[in-house]
Amino acid sequence: MGDNIRKIAILGSTGSIGRQALDVIRAFPDKLKVVALAANKNARLLEAQLKQFQPRMFCSSAKADIDYGGEFLSMEDIASHPEVDLVIVATAGKAGLSPTLAALRAGRTVALASKEVLVMAGEIVIREASLHKAQILPIDSEHSAIWQCLQGEEDKPRRLFLTASGGPFYRYSQSQLAEVTPEQALQHPVWKMGRKVTIDSGTLMNKGLEVIEAHWLFSFPFDGIEILIHPQSIVHSLVEFMDGSLKAQLSWPDMRLPIQYALSYPRRWPNPKLPYLDWNKIDSLNFEPADYNRFPCPKLAREAGKLGGTYPAVLCAADEVAVELFLNRRISFTDIAKIVQKTLDQHQNIAKPSLEEILAADAWARECATRLSLGHYKELERRSNLRLER
Amino acid sequence: MGDNIRKIAILGSTGSIGRQALDVIRAFPDKLKVVALAANKNARLLEAQLKQFQPRMFCSSAKADIDYGGEFLSMEDIASHPEVDLVIVATAGKAGLSPTLAALRAGRTVALASKEVLVMAGEIVIREASLHKAQILPIDSEHSAIWQCLQGEEDKPRRLFLTASGGPFYRYSQSQLAEVTPEQALQHPVWKMGRKVTIDSGTLMNKGLEVIEAHWLFSFPFDGIEILIHPQSIVHSLVEFMDGSLKAQLSWPDMRLPIQYALSYPRRWPNPKLPYLDWNKIDSLNFEPADYNRFPCPKLAREAGKLGGTYPAVLCAADEVAVELFLNRRISFTDIAKIVQKTLDQHQNIAKPSLEEILAADAWARECATRLSLGHYKELERRSNLRLER
Repeated sequence: MGDNIRKIAILGSTGSIGRQALDVIRAFPDKLKVVALAANKNARLLEAQLKQFQPRMFCSSAKADIDYGGEFLSMEDIASHPEVDLVIVATAGKAGLSPTLAALRAGRTVALASKEVLVMAGEIVIREASLHKAQILPIDSEHSAIWQCLQGEEDKPRRLFLTASGGPFYRYSQSQLAEVTPEQALQHPVWKMGRKVTIDSGTLMNKGLEVIEAHWLFSFPFDGIEILIHPQSIVHSLVEFMDGSLKAQLSWPDMRLPIQYALSYPRRWPNPKLPYLDWNKIDSLNFEPADYNRFPCPKLAREAGKLGGTYPAVLCAADEVAVELFLNRRISFTDIAKIVQKTLDQHQNIAKPSLEEILAADAWARECATRLSLGHYKELERRSNLRLER
Repeated sequence: MGDNIRKIAILGSTGSIGRQALDVIRAFPDKLKVVALAANKNARLLEAQLKQFQPRMFCSSAKADIDYGGEFLSMEDIASHPEVDLVIVATAGKAGLSPTLAALRAGRTVALASKEVLVMAGEIVIREASLHKAQILPIDSEHSAIWQCLQGEEDKPRRLFLTASGGPFYRYSQSQLAEVTPEQALQHPVWKMGRKVTIDSGTLMNKGLEVIEAHWLFSFPFDGIEILIHPQSIVHSLVEFMDGSLKAQLSWPDMRLPIQYALSYPRRWPNPKLPYLDWNKIDSLNFEPADYNRFPCPKLAREAGKLGGTYPAVLCAADEVAVELFLNRRISFTDIAKIVQKTLDQHQNIAKPSLEEILAADAWARECATRLSLGHYKELERRSNLRLER
């Protein structure tokens, strides 16, 4: 084993991205080595992963259920451990925030899949990365595409185009959207993802969050970041340069590719499990600007991003609550945007917030969104009862 | 005027590429300066260009008709002149060969638009560029696209995809193709180009020549260079990397963009005359592998390229003769490929040819193609007379 093996820690190894990251690492035993795995509650899968990859360190909130001889450390200690070269942050929600900061402060490279880290605390995260000369590499397919297209370019681009499949309901009318059920919304036409991300993909909130992420990752103004509906999900994003030339990155939709690129960067490695594009199977590629009337979430996200401070954290938290309420059939699909909007409306912003203030805003937003949706739900019940009484 | 102004010589300034190059240079008076113009017979336009751009040097085969005070030099002397930083070679046919070699031997950067230079003498040209550490920058939209996509990449790609509009007749049947008239063939749906290039675009011979060019420019094996029919001409070519990721370069079809990129490289300059892509105006982008049964020219070119030696020069010369005969209504549209094929069949190849041997093969091929088509024409006449006599 040479010293040029990259030593990887995966935070969130039992999630969709974590599992695919392990699949990539498995393909390159002479280039990549897992030295730490961390997961939340899925003890059975984590234990199996630990036994297969034999990392030195691990972390789990279900420690007691795991039979493994490795060293148990906090996610922060893993992320900043001297034996780790690169930390894949693929935890759900805000759990990745503190370990990401720990990794960056220790000068570790962070391969980032958790949207919330940059959306909630972009200013702090980018400042720490810059202070400690630590790199943040995107794993999201869209940001990976933009990053790939920016390679070798010296001048700031003019616009970034984030592509969106549009989700399963992009052609639905307003009233059809109101009737969407959790079962329908969990069927994504292209990407296999976690539940939260799949719903965010249907409301286009995921693109809104990605606009905020792109703003921080590429230090790019919000007004230059646009969303293009591209149902085939072959073009993963585009960059337009000042001279009118654009570059696009394409591939079959397979998250293992952007994961692998973050691990192989700046090199590219052939991986027999990653299929090459077959032009006989591609009919046409379509593009259209997104419709923010039927899908207001990206607009809310862009506004929250522009206002900055604690607004983006509030957006994130309110969306998380609203998606959960939708999945529990407490609110409708179109209510998700309304709950987020109302929570933002009620928020008292804090400019240049500390991490504590961001987490406080997150807690406030969860409470507020829950309260709002409860009121909303009661109002719906009341109306429905009125109808029944008639 | 600072010393960082790039001093440009244009060989072929009155042609389509030459005129568009001047249009680009005009937009950047603080970055680019024309120091030499050379053209063949269009004395009136050259004189107007000389008077407008006031270059120090010029060249023309119609010297006597030009009233201009600048220094008259040969194209070779212009191309290797110490005051020239970059030579745009946009001459027709093989005229650019000797000046390109002169420029490279003097260490000048060559921005290459003339396909024939690399097709006829790729091995010599690339060897001289490498010996004298001189750069060759592509101006063809396809090769510029590939070059742009390769920026910042460390690893050799897996495949290069040259896109082709398919020309005006891509959906024609074999028998419809045989009936195509010069008038129809000169109407290209997308690009405004010279007559020869427009016909080559209809037979797809231009793609065949571009495959050979790409082979030399990017030292890439022939079998890794593929042709994709893309009728909208928005994606100008694509590069597929070893990991399955592809990059594409896109823009409105406007030759001024690749010309400008060769002049601004590695920077990108905003040019108010170059329009930005408007996604509201793009419906869909289509791609399909090319059909070499109805369009055999790319196959002929690939074979000639692979065989090497003097075959590519013979391909070029035979095609030039055949296109001219087609434009003069001596042969049919589908005869172009046949004449080229037969000329290649009769050729005695010379491996590792000298420039003289290449030029001799060119002369032989012209004579052979003319003779073949004359025989062909007589045969057609004889058959047609037989029909009339019946």
